[in-house]
Amino acid sequence: MSRPTLVSLARELGVSRQTVSNVLNAPHLVRPSTRQRVQEAIERSGYRPSAVAQALRRKKSSTIAMRMYPTSDGINGAVMDRFLHRVVEQAESMGHRVVLFTAADDRAEIGALRDLIDRDSIDACLLTSTTAGDPRPAELGAAGIAFGAFGRPWGEEDTASHLWADVDGRAGTRAATEHLIDRGYRRVGFIGWPDGPGVGQDRLQGWADIVRERLGVDDPDEWLVRSDDGIVQGSAAATELLRRGCDALVCTSDSFATGAFDVFRGRPDLDGVLPIIGFDDTPVARAIGLSSITQPVEAAATLLVHRLVARATGDDGDTSMPTCRPVGSDGHLLAPVLQLRALAAAPAPALLSRARPDGDVGSGRLLEPTGG
Amino acid sequence: MSRPTLVSLARELGVSRQTVSNVLNAPHLVRPSTRQRVQEAIERSGYRPSAVAQALRRKKSSTIAMRMYPTSDGINGAVMDRFLHRVVEQAESMGHRVVLFTAADDRAEIGALRDLIDRDSIDACLLTSTTAGDPRPAELGAAGIAFGAFGRPWGEEDTASHLWADVDGRAGTRAATEHLIDRGYRRVGFIGWPDGPGVGQDRLQGWADIVRERLGVDDPDEWLVRSDDGIVQGSAAATELLRRGCDALVCTSDSFATGAFDVFRGRPDLDGVLPIIGFDDTPVARAIGLSSITQPVEAAATLLVHRLVARATGDDGDTSMPTCRPVGSDGHLLAPVLQLRALAAAPAPALLSRARPDGDVGSGRLLEPTGG
Repeated sequence: MSRPTLVSLARELGVSRQTVSNVLNAPHLVRPSTRQRVQEAIERSGYRPSAVAQALRRKKSSTIAMRMYPTSDGINGAVMDRFLHRVVEQAESMGHRVVLFTAADDRAEIGALRDLIDRDSIDACLLTSTTAGDPRPAELGAAGIAFGAFGRPWGEEDTASHLWADVDGRAGTRAATEHLIDRGYRRVGFIGWPDGPGVGQDRLQGWADIVRERLGVDDPDEWLVRSDDGIVQGSAAATELLRRGCDALVCTSDSFATGAFDVFRGRPDLDGVLPIIGFDDTPVARAIGLSSITQPVEAAATLLVHRLVARATGDDGDTSMPTCRPVGSDGHLLAPVLQLRALAAAPAPALLSRARPDGDVGSGRLLEPTGG
Repeated sequence: MSRPTLVSLARELGVSRQTVSNVLNAPHLVRPSTRQRVQEAIERSGYRPSAVAQALRRKKSSTIAMRMYPTSDGINGAVMDRFLHRVVEQAESMGHRVVLFTAADDRAEIGALRDLIDRDSIDACLLTSTTAGDPRPAELGAAGIAFGAFGRPWGEEDTASHLWADVDGRAGTRAATEHLIDRGYRRVGFIGWPDGPGVGQDRLQGWADIVRERLGVDDPDEWLVRSDDGIVQGSAAATELLRRGCDALVCTSDSFATGAFDVFRGRPDLDGVLPIIGFDDTPVARAIGLSSITQPVEAAATLLVHRLVARATGDDGDTSMPTCRPVGSDGHLLAPVLQLRALAAAPAPALLSRARPDGDVGSGRLLEPTGG
């Protein structure tokens, strides 16, 4: 009789090779009844994983670390919580767990990650909220710590060599602005975050591109208000942009858009049309019926965890990955989706009577231009 | 010269005993510059922690496990994400980290926790989403695994011996219903989850108590609609309760209340008053200006993690704990807070013109009764 192997054991038991491997390496993933059956068969068979495989396995903690940021905002913070949920689910499906820690700043985060690696507590880590000049990728790379980043290496997209995934915010605001122009709006304004490289500038750029290209505007700043994030700030900015003659708005965040939405809804002269598009498609946007731009954060989480774990373990696993545009040597840019919707549930009759059904927005009603 | 101790080292360096201990046991908590200074002093002094202390330390993983549930609902799920954030922060402040895992059901969760304990990967764990007849406390207790539960042992509050903290939902809906009655409403309805013991029944009971006591209603079910959670379901239930003559509503969730809010806002005969109170004080409630009941989830997280880690490590740490009502041998019931607010930002003029400023709701305007 030949020496038993994972494959022969799996065949004998009528389970997959992965199941036998999981019983040995990640038993929590296997249903208790199956686990017991496989364990008994392993004992009967005399199967022993090789010493090298065991040593390798012992070195693996099967854990990924991720820094948890404070809840900065109940509205936009939901995106990072969605990302975390998906990270944990994808990691679990590959036999890994996720350990969370907090850090006061990037330096403290690097220190915490070095400490976790030194203690063999983690195999790899995920970075989020990358910024221009971010010290983390270079430091972790120099320390030989495996990592992936949710967020691009701003300004170094083509030259950075590490694994990253990001959402193409600029493509999202381009699509939103084009949609409004296609509907006949001719003075599409933008509510943006304070000046500076990174996510906010990327989103603003998509709007500025289209306003220049399609509306022939030389200086889009005329229709731009920048502010710290927030609902009240969004209302103030929308009031200012209406004063400057804007007839529609694209916003860097759903917080801004929620505030703008209230201003538009409160102006009888706007006839109840709400040509406002937010960013992030948060629960708030869905609840009030606000159009928004959806970040495929779950796809980003799946891609990053899959690649990171597959490389750390040499196991390719499931290879059905989200489609995305490759950038540089190991970057992945995912396309956001424009989510058009009408007021949820039962909007005020005054609004409903003004709107017409429209194929573009499913069963919703929204975004009819006032003129044009 | 006497043998150096933690205390003498701390005195020499002008730092706290805890800081020296952290440098040895949880270096990630200490600012790098301080850490280096303390480490150098430790090396110079020849200080060596005792072998027993080291062995004890090695046995400690300084990690707490918690199951992450799928995101069931973008609105109400925010509460559990808030809890998790606070758990991670409180754990970190006591030198501990949090490892997350997913599980298909309670049995799988128990299996995962046993596995983590067997591998010395965790010291303790937190349970959430407890139910009547929950198998987890007894099984973890029998296995000698230290745990705390966010959620009471339904039906066994007085006899259970494990550490738990929960929010007094019944007190929350009592306060909400009393508030509406004090404002002159006489037919206060309730939108509840499907029948069954646990959180939903607890919240419903607070409303039923007050409707019986204050309004002398024998059968409050007349003003009750039960439904699966959701905004659309909340709208349908509110429409039905208006038909039955209700003039105000308390809801088991902000999802329900958001749907009800839209129905009330769309009824010109209601004169723009919105006597609706939700539950959980979610970002959606804050964004649309909905009154709601705030769960002190951060306080619950602080209490649970603090007690759990303090018991596991024998370190009392910071003892400033949230106030709460003790129940049974180790239960803690925290009082929720009624959060009254007006429409956020700029509500429609039709609504504003109807409302009057009112001291009770801060600078907001809401909840003026139609009659009474």
